Amino acid sequence: MRDFLPAEKAQRERVLAVIRSTFSGRGFDEIETPVMEDSDRLHAGLGGDNEKLAFGVLKRGLTVEAIREASEALDLADLGLRFDLTVPLARFYASHRAELPTVFRAIQIAPVWRAERPQKGRYRQFVQCDIDIIGEAGPMAEIELITATAATLDALGLEGCSIRVNDRRLLTSALELLGFPPKEHEPVLITIDKLDKIGQDGVITELRDRGFPAGPVDALEAFFRRPTTMEFLPFGEAAIRKFLPEGVDEAAVAELAGIGEAVNRVVGRDIVTFDPWLVRGMGYYTGAIFEVAHPSLGYSLGGGGRYDGMIGRFLGTDVPAAGFSLGFERLVELVELGSDAGQDAVALVYDADVDPVRLLALQSLLVAEGKRVRIERRPKNIKALLEALEASGFSSYAPVAADGGVGEWKALGAATA
Amino acid sequence: MRDFLPAEKAQRERVLAVIRSTFSGRGFDEIETPVMEDSDRLHAGLGGDNEKLAFGVLKRGLTVEAIREASEALDLADLGLRFDLTVPLARFYASHRAELPTVFRAIQIAPVWRAERPQKGRYRQFVQCDIDIIGEAGPMAEIELITATAATLDALGLEGCSIRVNDRRLLTSALELLGFPPKEHEPVLITIDKLDKIGQDGVITELRDRGFPAGPVDALEAFFRRPTTMEFLPFGEAAIRKFLPEGVDEAAVAELAGIGEAVNRVVGRDIVTFDPWLVRGMGYYTGAIFEVAHPSLGYSLGGGGRYDGMIGRFLGTDVPAAGFSLGFERLVELVELGSDAGQDAVALVYDADVDPVRLLALQSLLVAEGKRVRIERRPKNIKALLEALEASGFSSYAPVAADGGVGEWKALGAATA
Repeated sequence: MRDFLPAEKAQRERVLAVIRSTFSGRGFDEIETPVMEDSDRLHAGLGGDNEKLAFGVLKRGLTVEAIREASEALDLADLGLRFDLTVPLARFYASHRAELPTVFRAIQIAPVWRAERPQKGRYRQFVQCDIDIIGEAGPMAEIELITATAATLDALGLEGCSIRVNDRRLLTSALELLGFPPKEHEPVLITIDKLDKIGQDGVITELRDRGFPAGPVDALEAFFRRPTTMEFLPFGEAAIRKFLPEGVDEAAVAELAGIGEAVNRVVGRDIVTFDPWLVRGMGYYTGAIFEVAHPSLGYSLGGGGRYDGMIGRFLGTDVPAAGFSLGFERLVELVELGSDAGQDAVALVYDADVDPVRLLALQSLLVAEGKRVRIERRPKNIKALLEALEASGFSSYAPVAADGGVGEWKALGAATA
Repeated sequence: MRDFLPAEKAQRERVLAVIRSTFSGRGFDEIETPVMEDSDRLHAGLGGDNEKLAFGVLKRGLTVEAIREASEALDLADLGLRFDLTVPLARFYASHRAELPTVFRAIQIAPVWRAERPQKGRYRQFVQCDIDIIGEAGPMAEIELITATAATLDALGLEGCSIRVNDRRLLTSALELLGFPPKEHEPVLITIDKLDKIGQDGVITELRDRGFPAGPVDALEAFFRRPTTMEFLPFGEAAIRKFLPEGVDEAAVAELAGIGEAVNRVVGRDIVTFDPWLVRGMGYYTGAIFEVAHPSLGYSLGGGGRYDGMIGRFLGTDVPAAGFSLGFERLVELVELGSDAGQDAVALVYDADVDPVRLLALQSLLVAEGKRVRIERRPKNIKALLEALEASGFSSYAPVAADGGVGEWKALGAATA
C-alpha cells in the first residue's frame, strides 16, 4: 500500500479523467459500491483464488468469549474488503435491477484489496477500471467492450497494445477433442494457463506429473508438435481454426471471429489477435475471454470476458453479462500525459507583515481569471522556494509587499537560471 | 454503507470536481493515502471517541492457536480502516516531509469508515474533503483555510452558510476565570459541547450531576444569566469580549478577531461569526476552531481548527498545522448542480441484425464530435426505452437500420409526448 504525493496524485487523476470520460462518452454509466461486502458473499466461490486473499474485517464488539468460540479466522469477520469489482457488481445488479436500464452498461473505477505478499509492481491496494454490460446476450456486448477499451488505450496515447481473445467454449471443445473428460477440464486449464511461462514442453511435463491420463496428454503433445504452415492469416475464422484441433465448436469459432473482425474494422487496425491457449483464471467465464497485452510488459494490462452464469447466483434468474477490467496501476506507469495544459499556476510571495485581506483578495482575483494561485510567505532563502515552485509546475511569481502592492511578475525558469 | 446508482454517482462526481478544482485553484495539492493504517496508529489516542469506531482488519494467516491466545479483539487486528483523514495526514507528513514544500497545503478527498449504529443521515462509509496547511504557525493559515472553504461553498451555490469560530485558548481561559481547575477543563467541555442540544440549564444541571465543584459551576450559571445588551456588534474584538468573562486571553481574542475580520472582508460578507461555546470534540485542537453551519441543518457541514501538537506525535518535532474538513455526504444532499451542460447525450437505437462495424463507427464519429453516445438494441416496447433514456438525460435518438443507415434524429421529450 502506497502514499501518493502531489505530482503522482495529479497524474493519477489525469489518467482517471481520460478513462472515465472515454467510457462515459460511449454510453457507460458510472456506479459506486461500498469497499466492504459481506464476508459470506466474498467467500461464495465466485472469486477463485482471490477469495483467499480477501482482507477480513473484524466483527464489532467481539468479546473474549466469542473469540474463544471461533473455530477459524473467518468466524471473526462479518465483512471483508472487496478483492475485485465483479462480485460487488453482481450484488449491486441483483439489488437494484428494477432501477437500471434493461441493458446496463456500468463503469466502476475503484480500489480493490488483496493480501498478496509484497513484491515489485504488486500492491495490496490497487485501482481497477471496469466496464460491464449486463443484459446483452449477443456478441454486440463483447464488440462494445473491446472497442471502448481500445478507444481508452488510444485516448491515453498507449501505442502498440493488442487485445488477445479466446472463448471458453473453444477451450472446452479442444480439450474434449483431445480426449480429456469434462471433469478434468478446469484442472488441465490451470496448467495450460502457464504456457507463457513454462512453454509447451513444460505444460506436457506438468500434466504428466499431475497424473492426467496419458492418452489425452499425448494427444495434446502431438497437437503442439503438429506441422503448421508459416502462412500469415489475418484475424478471422480461418486463423482461429488453424490453431485448434479439427472439429472444434463451429458456432463459437464464428462468433469469436465476428467479434474480432468487427472490432478490428471499427478501430481501423488489427488490434485483436487470437490466442488459442488464453485461459483467464476465473472459473466464472462462459464465452469469449480477452486480455490486453503491451509490448513492453510481460503481463497483461487487463482482461475480461463473458460470465453469463454469475449474476444468477445473486439474483436467482440468469442474466447475460460480460466485462472488461483495466489494471490502473500498470496503465498509469506506462502513460505519459502532460500536466494540465489549460491552467496556468502562479505564486504570490508575500512579506510577513502583509495585509491578509489585500493578499487574499488578489489571490481571488487571479483565481477568477482561471489561474491556479499559491500564496507563499517570503522565506530567507527565496531561491529554494522558487526552485520548488518551478519543479511543481508553477510558471511565474510576483512579490507582494506589506501594503498589498504587487511587484513585477517574473517567469520561474528565468528567475532561478 | 450505500450503493450509488448512475444519477447519484454522476452528481457526486460533479460536486467533487467543483470542490477539487476550487481547492486546487487556491494552491492546495491533492494527495492520497491507503485506506488501511496500522492498527497501533489508529489507536494512539489521537482520534478521540472515533478510535472506538474504527473497523479492525484481521491479521492474515491467523491460526486457531493464535486466536485462542488473543486477550481482546484488537490483538487480532494489525490494520484498520481510517476513521478520519487527519491521522493519516500526520503519518503521511512524517513519512514524506523531505519531499514536501516547507509550507504544505494538502487536499484529501476520500472515504473514511466508522462503525456507527445505522441511523438516518449517518453512514458507516462516508467521504470527507479535507484541506490542511502544515508548517504555517501564523493566522494566515486559518485565514486561507476559511477563505478556501467559503470559496468552495460559493462555487457549489450553497447560500446562507456561516462559519462559526472560537479558539481553544479562549475556552481554557474562560474556564480558568470561572474557577475550574485545569484538569477539569476537558471533562467540563464535553458537557458544554451539548449546549446546542440541552441548553444552558441542561448544561448546569449536568455539570452538577457529574459532581463538578459547586463554585465554578455557580460562576458559570451566573455568567450564563448575566444581563447583556441586545446591541448588535459586528464580528471583532468587542463582539468576542462581550460573550466571555472579563479578563480572557487578550492575545487569543486579537488573533481570532484578526482571522474573522480578514475572512469577512475577503469574502465580502459577514460569513464568520463568533460562538463562545463552540468546542469541537477532538482533544488535539490547540488554537482557533471552526464549524460550518447551514440554516437548513441542525448539524454542521464540517469543521476544523489548529492542531499544533499532533504532527509532532509522529515526527518527533512539533510542526504547526491547521485544517478544515467538509462533510461531503451532507454537502452533496444540499447542493443542486445541473447535469453536465457541456455534453450532449444521444442514443443510437439499432435493429437486431445491424452491421456492428457501421453502428460502432457511427458511434465513434459522434463521440469524436464531443457527444455522449449510448447504443441500444431496439426493443419490442420502444416507448419504455425512450422514456428511460430521457429520464437519464439523453436529448435525442436516431434509429439505425441493418445496413447502418441512420434514420431521422428525434428529440426525446417530443418523441414520448
